[in-house]
Amino acid sequence: MRTLTPGERLPSIRGLAASMQVSPSTVVEAYDRLAADGLIAARRGSGFFVLDTPQPLQIAANGPRLDRAIDPFWISRQALDADPALPKPGCGWLPADWMPTDALRRALRALSRVEAETLADYGSAQGQGELRRLIARDLAEQGLDVPPDRILLAGSGTQAMDLICRLLLRPGDTVLVDDPCYFNFQALLRAHQVRIVGVPYTPQGPDTERFAQVLASARPRLYLTNSALHNPTGATISAPVAHRLLVLAAQHDLTIIEDDIFAAFEPEPSPRLAALDGLERVIRIGSFSKTLSASARCGYIAARPDWISALIDLQVATNFGGPSPMAAELLRVVLADGGYRKHVAALQGRLARARRQAAARLAALGITPWLEPRGGFYLWCRLPEGLDAADVARAALKRGIVLAPGNAFSAAQTQAGLMRFNVSQMGGPEVDAVLKEALTEAREIAGRRSQAS
Amino acid sequence: MRTLTPGERLPSIRGLAASMQVSPSTVVEAYDRLAADGLIAARRGSGFFVLDTPQPLQIAANGPRLDRAIDPFWISRQALDADPALPKPGCGWLPADWMPTDALRRALRALSRVEAETLADYGSAQGQGELRRLIARDLAEQGLDVPPDRILLAGSGTQAMDLICRLLLRPGDTVLVDDPCYFNFQALLRAHQVRIVGVPYTPQGPDTERFAQVLASARPRLYLTNSALHNPTGATISAPVAHRLLVLAAQHDLTIIEDDIFAAFEPEPSPRLAALDGLERVIRIGSFSKTLSASARCGYIAARPDWISALIDLQVATNFGGPSPMAAELLRVVLADGGYRKHVAALQGRLARARRQAAARLAALGITPWLEPRGGFYLWCRLPEGLDAADVARAALKRGIVLAPGNAFSAAQTQAGLMRFNVSQMGGPEVDAVLKEALTEAREIAGRRSQAS
Repeated sequence: MRTLTPGERLPSIRGLAASMQVSPSTVVEAYDRLAADGLIAARRGSGFFVLDTPQPLQIAANGPRLDRAIDPFWISRQALDADPALPKPGCGWLPADWMPTDALRRALRALSRVEAETLADYGSAQGQGELRRLIARDLAEQGLDVPPDRILLAGSGTQAMDLICRLLLRPGDTVLVDDPCYFNFQALLRAHQVRIVGVPYTPQGPDTERFAQVLASARPRLYLTNSALHNPTGATISAPVAHRLLVLAAQHDLTIIEDDIFAAFEPEPSPRLAALDGLERVIRIGSFSKTLSASARCGYIAARPDWISALIDLQVATNFGGPSPMAAELLRVVLADGGYRKHVAALQGRLARARRQAAARLAALGITPWLEPRGGFYLWCRLPEGLDAADVARAALKRGIVLAPGNAFSAAQTQAGLMRFNVSQMGGPEVDAVLKEALTEAREIAGRRSQAS
Repeated sequence: MRTLTPGERLPSIRGLAASMQVSPSTVVEAYDRLAADGLIAARRGSGFFVLDTPQPLQIAANGPRLDRAIDPFWISRQALDADPALPKPGCGWLPADWMPTDALRRALRALSRVEAETLADYGSAQGQGELRRLIARDLAEQGLDVPPDRILLAGSGTQAMDLICRLLLRPGDTVLVDDPCYFNFQALLRAHQVRIVGVPYTPQGPDTERFAQVLASARPRLYLTNSALHNPTGATISAPVAHRLLVLAAQHDLTIIEDDIFAAFEPEPSPRLAALDGLERVIRIGSFSKTLSASARCGYIAARPDWISALIDLQVATNFGGPSPMAAELLRVVLADGGYRKHVAALQGRLARARRQAAARLAALGITPWLEPRGGFYLWCRLPEGLDAADVARAALKRGIVLAPGNAFSAAQTQAGLMRFNVSQMGGPEVDAVLKEALTEAREIAGRRSQAS
C-alpha cells in the first residue's frame, strides 16, 4: 500500500475494486466518505484527487476529529437528520406533538392577514419592539430589569451565543464551561478556535473552589453556563454559589454568558446571575426553541448598551438582520394566546410524570439518575459500573437509536460512565430492548479491554 | 478640557451640564452616544466610566469609524430602521407592495395545516430537500448542474457568504471585491478582519488586466462578486470576461464566491462563473430576499461536496441549523404557486417603466446613469460635476431621505461623484424637491472647499 501525495490522482474505482477484490460500490462508498471528510475531491471527467490542505476541516474540527460517538458535531447532525420514525432518547428537544401546535396554527392564520411589510421586508436591526417588550416583561419577573432597547433579537439561542463570541473572543483565548456542559457549546467554541477549560458541576452549580482556581490559572475571557435547569445534569445553581461566582468574576474581569433556554420548565424561579449582576458583566441569552417552536428560529440577547450596539452592527454585517419578522410576529401572537400559558403549565405536569416513568424503566436496567431535576426533560444518569457510555451509544446506533453519551458533554472527558436521556423521547419497549442489548455489548467490550490491559 | 483615562469616572450629568452651560439632556444625549460607541459605560448607581479597551468596536469597525454618510454599517442600519413612511431611494429592496404578498398569504394559510414537525422541530442540517431540488432545477436552467445534496440552505444570502468566509478566511487574509461593490460586503469583510482590495468594474465586468495584476501582487484568498446584474452598477459580465477571470483564478488558486441574488430580474440568462467552472473553485450563493420575501430569511449555497460538508458542520455549531423549516416550506409553496412566475414577469415590465421614469426625473436634476441596466431596480448615476455624493447624502438625510452615496460602495473611495438610486423607492415630487435642495447644499459645500484649498 503506497502513500498518495497532495494533488495525486487516486486509483480508478474499478481498478481499486479489482485489486482489492471488493465490489465497486464499496470503493464508491469509501471515496465518498473521504470526500465528505475533505481529504479527496472529484474532478469532473478525471477521477478523484488528493486535496492539498485539509483547510475545510480546520474550522469544523479544530484538531483531529474525535471518535464520532462523542463528537459534538457528529451527534448534532445525527440527531437533526435522524429518521423521524425512530426514537431519539439522546436528542435535546420535545417531540412536535408536545409543542403548542394548535396555538402555532392559529398564529399562522393570523399572520396570513398581517400588513405586507411583515410578510416581505427585512426587519428592523434590533428586532420587533413588541416582542422585545414581552421578553423584558418576562425578564422583570426574574428580577432582571432590562429596558427593551437593551434586548436584541437573534436567529436562535445558539446564534446569539455565537454573535457574542465573535464580538468578545480572539483565536487562542480561553473559555470556561461547566463539566459536563451542553455539547454544542463545545462545537461552537471549537469553531472559534479557543481553548476550552471545564469546571466540575455539582448539584448546587459549579464547584466554586475549582472555579476560583481556574480563573487564576487559566485566565478565561468568558464563562458559558445555563441558568434555571443545567444541561445535561438538570441541577439548579444555589443563591450562595451564584453570588460567589459573581464575586470571583468581578475579581478576574470575567464576562459570563448565561443561557436561559430552559427557563419555562422551572416550577418556580431560581437564582439568575444576570438578575444579581444587573448585566454589568453577565450577558443573558434566551430562546423560544424548547417550549414554543424550534422551527421559528428566534432567540435574544440582553446586555449592556455598548455591547448591544456592537452586536447589532455585527448581526447586520453578517446576516443583514436578525430573525424573520414573520417569526417574531408568530411568537408574539402565540405568547399573547391564552392557551399558551395553560400549555406550559400542563407541560410541566406531563414532564414530571415522564421523568418518573423514564427513571423506572432505566432503573430496571441498572441506570440511575445522578440527580432528580426540579423540571425539564433530561435525566442525567449513571450507567452500571465499568461501562463506557460511548460503547453503549455505538451499540445502540447500530440498532437505529441515537443516544447521548457522557463524554460528548465533557471537553475533559470525565463523564465516561454517564448518559443523558430525554424523557419525552424514550419510545416504547423497543427502546428498552435496544438499551439492554447495548449494555450487554458494552459489558463485553469492557471485559475485552480489561483483559487486553 | 482634560483627558480621561480608562477606568476613570466621567463628570456627573448635572455637573457637566452646569460647567458647560448646556441642558442636562444635552449631556445625557452625548453620554448615550459615547456609550453606544463603546467608549464609556454606566455603572449602576455610580455614574459613567471610561472603558478599558474599545474591544466591541474592533470587530464592528475594524479600524476607526468612517464618516457615517459612507459607513456601510451606518447606512445599513439607517435603511433597516428608517421611518416606513419616508421614501428610501438609497435602500436595496423593493417596497412590500411590489412583492408577491397574495401568494405569501396563500402559502401561510397552507402552512397552518402542515404536520406538527414543520411547525415545531429543528430542521434537517442541510435544509428541506424539496426546496433544494427546486433550487437545483433553477440552477440547471443556468447551465449549472448541481445535485441537491451539494446545496445547503442558509439563513440568508449574507449569512451564506459569512459562513463561507468563516470557513476559508483567516484574519489578515486579502479578499478581492469589485470597485464599486455592494456595501454590506465591506461590512462583512471588516467583521472578518481581512484586507479588502478592489478591482474596477467596467460595463462588461471586472477590468481583467487589473484583475490579473491584483492577483499577482495582492494574492487574495477570495473574490466576491455578483452575477446577473451587478450591485450597484447594474452591469452584466460578458462571456469573454467570465472566461478570462476563471483562467486567472485557476492560475492563482483563487476561490470565487458568486452571489446570484438578482438572478430573477434578468430578462434573459447571462454568463455565470459557477456554470462555466462547474463549482470547482466557484461557490454559488443565492437568496429569495429580493423577489419573494426578505422576511422569510432563506438563502442557499451550492459548492463542492467537501466544502458543503464542512459548512453544514459550521452552521450546526453556530446556529444549530439553517433557515426555519416553516420558511423553507413557505418558499417551496410560493415557488410552486402558478401566480408567482406571472408576478416575476410582470415585475420586470414594471421595473423597466420605473427605470425610465426615474432616469427622466434624475436627468432634470443633471443626474445621469453610468449605464442603462438590462433589468433590476438600481440606477448607478453620475452627479453633476464637482459634487461629492456624501455631501448630497448628508443634506438629504437632514430632510429625512436616505440616499446611497458612491463611496459607501468603494473601499478605495474612488466613487465620490456617483450615487445609487432604487427606482422603486423614489417616492413623489417631495423627493425631487429634497434632491434639488441637497444638490444645492452640496454645491455650496464644494465651493467652500475649493476656496479653502
